[in-house]
Amino acid sequence: MRTDSENKCFGGVQGVYTHASEATGTDMTFGLYLPRGDGPFPVLFYLSGLTCTHENAMVKAGAQAWAAEHGLAIVFPDTSPRGAGVADDGDYDLGQGAGFYVDATEAPWAPHFRMESYVLRDLSDVLFENFPLDADRQAITGHSMGGHGALTLAAKSPGRFRSVSAFSPICHPTESDWGQKQFTAYLGAVEAGTAHDATLLARAGKLAMPVLTDTGTADQFTAFLKTEALAEALASRPDAEVRMQEGYDHSYFFVSTFMADHIAFHDRHLRA
Amino acid sequence: MRTDSENKCFGGVQGVYTHASEATGTDMTFGLYLPRGDGPFPVLFYLSGLTCTHENAMVKAGAQAWAAEHGLAIVFPDTSPRGAGVADDGDYDLGQGAGFYVDATEAPWAPHFRMESYVLRDLSDVLFENFPLDADRQAITGHSMGGHGALTLAAKSPGRFRSVSAFSPICHPTESDWGQKQFTAYLGAVEAGTAHDATLLARAGKLAMPVLTDTGTADQFTAFLKTEALAEALASRPDAEVRMQEGYDHSYFFVSTFMADHIAFHDRHLRA
Repeated sequence: MRTDSENKCFGGVQGVYTHASEATGTDMTFGLYLPRGDGPFPVLFYLSGLTCTHENAMVKAGAQAWAAEHGLAIVFPDTSPRGAGVADDGDYDLGQGAGFYVDATEAPWAPHFRMESYVLRDLSDVLFENFPLDADRQAITGHSMGGHGALTLAAKSPGRFRSVSAFSPICHPTESDWGQKQFTAYLGAVEAGTAHDATLLARAGKLAMPVLTDTGTADQFTAFLKTEALAEALASRPDAEVRMQEGYDHSYFFVSTFMADHIAFHDRHLRA
Repeated sequence: MRTDSENKCFGGVQGVYTHASEATGTDMTFGLYLPRGDGPFPVLFYLSGLTCTHENAMVKAGAQAWAAEHGLAIVFPDTSPRGAGVADDGDYDLGQGAGFYVDATEAPWAPHFRMESYVLRDLSDVLFENFPLDADRQAITGHSMGGHGALTLAAKSPGRFRSVSAFSPICHPTESDWGQKQFTAYLGAVEAGTAHDATLLARAGKLAMPVLTDTGTADQFTAFLKTEALAEALASRPDAEVRMQEGYDHSYFFVSTFMADHIAFHDRHLRA
């Protein structure tokens, strides 16, 4: 693992690190915020959306202020493998920057696009080996495609994440243009995406931890998100809140507004 | 004036607007955060540093959270004129992105590089004409070159700004590589920069309002900032604090850490 940068921030350290991932077969870069103190710290994974790298949320979400207040670490993974020899697509919503947190089985994506294994295994290994993080206290969140990633990876890792939240998540990708296209490309068929659809996982009772999502009523991608499907699937769950926020859109101005709420939500469950 | 974008943020609106400036002879773009409510709001000017546009602080400084809490508006001007027909230089610290908040008198800069008049006059006119801002309650801050801008424009506008603060400001540009080069280019001589040097203005008793500055002890540009000169010039002033912050560098990770402090400082004086 290589240290790319470390900057003091709210009494802790915002670092950027690069390591070789077996899952993706590439070097992967991630951001990690560690609050002041010796740890071990509870850790929140923040998965980013389409077109993002590890950097966007790290500089735009304002998360460090609240992470410092609660003594929480936050990890900011990249959204796909990158570099020479890694397949790509001209569209912003497929290929590099658009890994969709699945392990691709189809050409040309299968050799490197294995973001589910990357986040759940390789990144986690490097984190818990190198930093004072508490593997017994993990939570996960994300934005848009990363909200989809947070909800689905949480559902697929029973017992691992104590709580899950999301900002404007893609909720029902098998029924959305953000999902059908990618599942077809990466997995060969939309049907293969049913294992990676937050609404379907929730309906099957697999989202078995406290859930909080926020989505803006002025979100320009409402038709892609299918928030109402997830709300319906979770309607009977007293520990799940699918909130609509009046007048907010899909931007980081929205994410930063509700970051304090989400970090407090996770902190409550991580310390319970 | 044209509205480029408006995003709901912490209950208020983060807008971006473009207007024609007589001072620069160009269109100029600025960001404005308005908190929730009807106003008129006290207003804080945030001047950015080298290479920045109106956008950097708007997305990276985390200022909206605290502005919303205090009911304060924040304006984020650009750092220079831009566009076709505007002079530039290959170096990052001269020309576009590096206006230094002076009115240039020398070729090729004189026709457009008039950032002192732009901020103090044209931008202010468009702000107070179009938005619910309280001209009797103004304060100013900035980062690096923008800290220099905040300190010097405050000193040169007696009675206008109730308080001034800065993050890692260039404090003594007539004695620095960040200053001598630019004053020579824009004003014809380093000596012409004495009217735009925060330390010299402070020595002359012209920084006559409460002052707060923060600079990191790990700032990679310490030699350019000359913080000790400003500290000495203000040493006898009970209403001036030149603080050094252990281990912080020049980045927005530093700025965001102390933003809450600076906004609380200005709020105290704006409401006094």
